[in-house]
Amino acid sequence: MKTQQQAKAFADGLDGGVFWRYVEEQARIGALTPRGIRRLALDAHDNEARLWLAARGRELGCEVVYDDLANVFLRRVGSDPSLPPLLIGSHMDSQPCAGAYDGALGVMAGLAILQGLQAAGMEHRRTVEVVAWTNEEGARFAPGTSGSSWYAGERAYQDIVPARDDAGMSFGEALAQTLALLKQDGLAYRPAPVRPHAYLELHIEQGPILERQGVPVGIVDGIQGVYWYEVTVRGKANHAGTTPRSARADALDGAHALIGAMKELVYAHDEQVRFTIGKFSLTPGSVNTIPSEARFTIDLRHPDQAVLQAIDSGFEALAAEPWSNCRVELVRTSAVAPVRFTPELVDCLSRSARAYCEAAPVMVSGAFHDAIHLIRYCPTAMLFTTCRGGLSHHPDEAVDRADAEVALRAFAMAAYQLISE
Amino acid sequence: MKTQQQAKAFADGLDGGVFWRYVEEQARIGALTPRGIRRLALDAHDNEARLWLAARGRELGCEVVYDDLANVFLRRVGSDPSLPPLLIGSHMDSQPCAGAYDGALGVMAGLAILQGLQAAGMEHRRTVEVVAWTNEEGARFAPGTSGSSWYAGERAYQDIVPARDDAGMSFGEALAQTLALLKQDGLAYRPAPVRPHAYLELHIEQGPILERQGVPVGIVDGIQGVYWYEVTVRGKANHAGTTPRSARADALDGAHALIGAMKELVYAHDEQVRFTIGKFSLTPGSVNTIPSEARFTIDLRHPDQAVLQAIDSGFEALAAEPWSNCRVELVRTSAVAPVRFTPELVDCLSRSARAYCEAAPVMVSGAFHDAIHLIRYCPTAMLFTTCRGGLSHHPDEAVDRADAEVALRAFAMAAYQLISE
Repeated sequence: MKTQQQAKAFADGLDGGVFWRYVEEQARIGALTPRGIRRLALDAHDNEARLWLAARGRELGCEVVYDDLANVFLRRVGSDPSLPPLLIGSHMDSQPCAGAYDGALGVMAGLAILQGLQAAGMEHRRTVEVVAWTNEEGARFAPGTSGSSWYAGERAYQDIVPARDDAGMSFGEALAQTLALLKQDGLAYRPAPVRPHAYLELHIEQGPILERQGVPVGIVDGIQGVYWYEVTVRGKANHAGTTPRSARADALDGAHALIGAMKELVYAHDEQVRFTIGKFSLTPGSVNTIPSEARFTIDLRHPDQAVLQAIDSGFEALAAEPWSNCRVELVRTSAVAPVRFTPELVDCLSRSARAYCEAAPVMVSGAFHDAIHLIRYCPTAMLFTTCRGGLSHHPDEAVDRADAEVALRAFAMAAYQLISE
Repeated sequence: MKTQQQAKAFADGLDGGVFWRYVEEQARIGALTPRGIRRLALDAHDNEARLWLAARGRELGCEVVYDDLANVFLRRVGSDPSLPPLLIGSHMDSQPCAGAYDGALGVMAGLAILQGLQAAGMEHRRTVEVVAWTNEEGARFAPGTSGSSWYAGERAYQDIVPARDDAGMSFGEALAQTLALLKQDGLAYRPAPVRPHAYLELHIEQGPILERQGVPVGIVDGIQGVYWYEVTVRGKANHAGTTPRSARADALDGAHALIGAMKELVYAHDEQVRFTIGKFSLTPGSVNTIPSEARFTIDLRHPDQAVLQAIDSGFEALAAEPWSNCRVELVRTSAVAPVRFTPELVDCLSRSARAYCEAAPVMVSGAFHDAIHLIRYCPTAMLFTTCRGGLSHHPDEAVDRADAEVALRAFAMAAYQLISE
């Protein structure tokens, strides 16, 4: 109980102005005109953000280390260095035309906590590390969450480095340049991951639920599962003017009918299901030729694995049928099962949030985060803060400063308890 | 009646072997490996085909003339040169990867008729001209039917020559090279079009109807109208994982629903309607982003203008509604009204066809042909011959030689009557 009061006092004492200055400063790195940012993983601006973060860490008396994936850690060592550290953080890379908060806000919250500890000259038993993970977005090198998945032992180095960007440069080549830069800047190399006591991540919600409920924060107790598919519908090209409907194998027609059946199947489940067709193309793609082939992707999400499996089986059954004389090929290109975060950490964050706001709903994250890998490595939970209109991956992404400060204090209160234990 | 018997005798006497040799010879110009041809309008192979045709015309004692659009005419002058000529022909340019019959078969039929007249030393009152029109396909320079539309006064020279191919060359530049070649080859220049007595065109059907009915020829009494549209469905991009269905403005969802309503509207009309969506794209086109925009084209055809108008109004009404929270913009990019060919010529072709086969259905053409312009200039009709599987614009395009000979004789019988009048 005493710890909780101290934790609240610590969080109350954090300097909101310093926090917001950090947020605004990092937003200038890779800034776009008239607004938005672009910091593609391992590009010049993403590297500049790493060096900026390292400089802030040194100002605050932290050890600054990096690892084989160019993840950057600011370490404030506790009074009992034998204890595994509390790890907090997020990422600083962005989508090609993004806002300044997705990822970065979580790293800035960590920085503000380090600044608060430093300013107060506060001792704490457990080491705290603030991390900026490499390539969460996967926008330049797919797939994303490279740094965190490697750190948590979920993905191997040799499976990550071959990925190439659109210009043909490999992840490994870009990584080598970044690592040289970090070494040159005086960061210390840490060869192996250190298993943390716990991992906490603050992130913008990237969805509209908190704003709709009129609350500044939510506690994340899991991340929904994501299945990706590529669907090919094969018909036969023919002249648009001469071929009667009965003689057609129109791939667009087949895709249209199949998508209709898929929507019916998907939305027969509860309203938590997310079903998105984000890519769609026709071959040969001529106004007056019946398309021979339609290809589209599906992004399917749900917090419950059983629901995902049921829909998956339904998709398989639909793909086995002919649609408008066309054959269907359905390939599941990725299947990430839902994860549940650590109940004790979810409770700890919930209690802290309630110290700063009347309600803080416990919710499932619709988006991926680095935490999806950390939960397989150590106790993990997340805190969401409201973003305007739920908009993200867009230069208009916006966060209310007052909301962000509430989120920071609730988050810091939980973090303080964990490093004081 | 006497003329009809003479006409039948003339057509019976045509040398099927010579006709087929012409067909095979021209198929070697621009031949692809392993099969198919490529003769893009005004390219080297298309020019070679012109010179080959001119050489065949000279062999047969014809005057060979060209005009401002590089249309090539083989003239066999009649005993009364004051009579307007019978014009027969089609085109020799092709799609990028095409068969050897689309267009060329009609020009070869004309050549076989000239050869028959020459071989029999036959006199005829009316001049007959065989034409190869420039750029029917529109594959290199859009739109197509350049030569015939200019000849019939439907399109102006200055509206045709600015079109550019993918390499940036203008129609006018390519045309100048072709004209110089024709002049150098000794062809005579004819400045102004000569209004024909009638225009007849033999063409492969490019559809499956004749083959399904098991008949070698059909008589074409019109070309259906074609309306083209570009449809844009505008929603809002957002994260595929975090945005609940109720908060989405998913452009794919909107397009799917709109297309469903359009199909219902279109197919409520008779089965002669043709509705094709040949191009479809999503923006931004990312697996895990809700699409902000869907764009697709519509190719709508029907022989009856009233039906096209009714569907057009229906489309306008649908586009005014919201679809899955998205707005719709519908632009009609082209509207070509249906045409009806000259009943007397349709009857003449029908009678001739019945001299060679039990049934020759009277039908509407689903595809465009040069005849669509000639009908606005002079009496016009067409004869179709069966092509395998209805396939065209494809290297597997195929014609049965026996069917083609039946088509040639039926066509020649009608032509003979028109030049003997």
